[in-house]
Amino acid sequence: MPVLVMKFGGTSVATLDRIRRAAKRVGREVANGYDVIVIVSAMSGETNKLVGFVNETSPMYDAREYDAIVSSGENVTAGLMALTLQEMDIPARSWQGWQVPLKTTSAHGAARIKEIPPENINFKFAEGMKVAVVAGFQGISPEGRITTLGRGGSDTTAVAFAAAFDAERCDIYTDVDGVYTTDPRITDKAQKLEKVAFEEMLELASLGAKVLQTRSVELAMRYKVRLRVLSSFEEYDPNAGTLICAEEEIVESRVVSGVAASREEAKMTLVSVADRPGIAAAIFGPLAEAGINVDMIVQNISEDGETDMTFSCPTDQVKRAEKVLSDAKSAGDIAYTDLIADTDVAKVSVVGIGMRSQSGVAAKMFKTLSDEGINIKVIATSEIKISVLVDRKYMELAVQALHDAFELEKAA
Amino acid sequence: MPVLVMKFGGTSVATLDRIRRAAKRVGREVANGYDVIVIVSAMSGETNKLVGFVNETSPMYDAREYDAIVSSGENVTAGLMALTLQEMDIPARSWQGWQVPLKTTSAHGAARIKEIPPENINFKFAEGMKVAVVAGFQGISPEGRITTLGRGGSDTTAVAFAAAFDAERCDIYTDVDGVYTTDPRITDKAQKLEKVAFEEMLELASLGAKVLQTRSVELAMRYKVRLRVLSSFEEYDPNAGTLICAEEEIVESRVVSGVAASREEAKMTLVSVADRPGIAAAIFGPLAEAGINVDMIVQNISEDGETDMTFSCPTDQVKRAEKVLSDAKSAGDIAYTDLIADTDVAKVSVVGIGMRSQSGVAAKMFKTLSDEGINIKVIATSEIKISVLVDRKYMELAVQALHDAFELEKAA
Repeated sequence: MPVLVMKFGGTSVATLDRIRRAAKRVGREVANGYDVIVIVSAMSGETNKLVGFVNETSPMYDAREYDAIVSSGENVTAGLMALTLQEMDIPARSWQGWQVPLKTTSAHGAARIKEIPPENINFKFAEGMKVAVVAGFQGISPEGRITTLGRGGSDTTAVAFAAAFDAERCDIYTDVDGVYTTDPRITDKAQKLEKVAFEEMLELASLGAKVLQTRSVELAMRYKVRLRVLSSFEEYDPNAGTLICAEEEIVESRVVSGVAASREEAKMTLVSVADRPGIAAAIFGPLAEAGINVDMIVQNISEDGETDMTFSCPTDQVKRAEKVLSDAKSAGDIAYTDLIADTDVAKVSVVGIGMRSQSGVAAKMFKTLSDEGINIKVIATSEIKISVLVDRKYMELAVQALHDAFELEKAA
Repeated sequence: MPVLVMKFGGTSVATLDRIRRAAKRVGREVANGYDVIVIVSAMSGETNKLVGFVNETSPMYDAREYDAIVSSGENVTAGLMALTLQEMDIPARSWQGWQVPLKTTSAHGAARIKEIPPENINFKFAEGMKVAVVAGFQGISPEGRITTLGRGGSDTTAVAFAAAFDAERCDIYTDVDGVYTTDPRITDKAQKLEKVAFEEMLELASLGAKVLQTRSVELAMRYKVRLRVLSSFEEYDPNAGTLICAEEEIVESRVVSGVAASREEAKMTLVSVADRPGIAAAIFGPLAEAGINVDMIVQNISEDGETDMTFSCPTDQVKRAEKVLSDAKSAGDIAYTDLIADTDVAKVSVVGIGMRSQSGVAAKMFKTLSDEGINIKVIATSEIKISVLVDRKYMELAVQALHDAFELEKAA
């Protein structure tokens, strides 16, 4: 039997009634001839409640106990989903992470999946079970302790199962109906994409299109797992949602697939740093060690052996970055005359695998922004993405103008 | 190091604040030099919430899924208790049933404990861990599924751990401060007992003194586990509560230790059954198979080869008992002219290990009731207990009179 993985997020299993609706979708795929592996999150609100308990009990908590506590919400949903399917006369049972076993590293709270031996579940499929309901987000460490994969880890669980069981597809049911050319709240011209390449999705995900956890997309790309994102609140439609797949499956690739925007980016400038070999390492090494997610980096031209170094990082990490850099200055590792943090910026990016073979995308982007009178503060490019920092007040305008310029209203 | 088992019920861990108070008690015992095994229930209300989910989802639920779901509440408390102890600088970790592993039968929802290998926990004690916090009520079946021990199963978990680790004592923290000579709501002369023998406690527990699950007392008696029942809401006192122990530990045993009463008992009479060999088996065999808890049985004298058979059973099983007996009559297995159910009765019992060596207890009991004008409907005796059924309206009066007659206000 072909295997299908279906993942239901917290809002899709928030009540017993929603669990029943999700179970009906599972039943339809069983009727279509699939052996189904269902990955469930905790009922929405449950994990936050448990995290609240932990934080109130022990601000500097033992991550092993944190994992044992917060993983319990998924166990409840898994059992309830199995019971609901049984009520529909579909042979189903629940599996907790340690029962599979889903083996992970010992990095509690952010464990990585090492192995999912398929034997136990396949044995049950062979016996006639049609649905394995697996508690998402959790696994077991080499020491036999419960681990969790970090926020959004259920998406990663789903993709890893799809890879381990060579599933035909991994359907991620969530509260949005797919991936859009841009945030529909910014322009109503935003179009749902029928297909998007893994690489594009990675850029979009990391740029603030919060449909899927970046890590799950990386994993899907590595193991060529076809991912579909779709809403659990819409009527059943076999072609619903957005398929995230290998480039080869997208016959007519677009030059630009989407425009992403993020308000949560700040611009930091170190004024007058020495322009010498090793200076970048001296600055960005300590920042990386402190867990600062540095994104764009720009170095100005040098004058009198000194230069300005600009980079962007998440707004909520600015204070920490400032401390790391002033500590490095005090320690004599780096020198600068001033550190300017500008939190009043936004990052706007155009993304598309077609860019690789098509020139002129950057020029068109810059001209479009210029025509709107929007000043570009920092530029960074990758093979399939061009990002700029602009004043935050221009973010929506920039997105709308770029969406028009690349004719994304005709996409999908 | 000597081992102490401490069990905290749902009301004792109902909030984070109460968990902290319980943890302080644990800390005190660690300071007293014990390695402590703490058994925790779910925060009160949690298990009922989960049971509600199951019943709403699937009235004829799969007991394996039921167990996987309802056991999750204990996991949360175990983790929170471990974190709370760590905050107090006491080395502690949580253990779920499967991690110990607490091995049980496959009788989901009412599993029996088969084995608790002490190696894993002892290894951690040897490494310097001071407290093992174990999720109560749960275990693992030979098939690797999660099992639960049935309601009140955390008491049984605690006693089983005390036996497996040869603990000096098993302290059961609950919302009452000990075992009383009778229900203090019936007479304010009721006295807390300092010590009570296992056998007495068994009779008291099965007679409606709902302090401990009968099963946990049976287990304690079999393995000679000294049990202490005490309140988690009182100030610390090393001699608090009631110790349930072997008879030998009770130097001056009383003739009567307590008077128990139960409203939930009904009297059933089968009129004119054949007085022949095998008739009792023909009546009580089917009742036992149907799970009816028959307690007292009285057979009247025979007349013309016929007799009346009277027995008592819990009030909520009367309907079922009637059906079982009328089915047996229809099948021709037994014959009777009438079946009379009297649900307007109460059972009153005096219990005491001293009865074994002291005669006249029954006579004193009957005279006391007679002096109060209370008619006795059924009598049953065991080695350490005399029970009577009386009209329900006389229950309180009977208890008060017997409490006075046996001078239990001087007990403790």
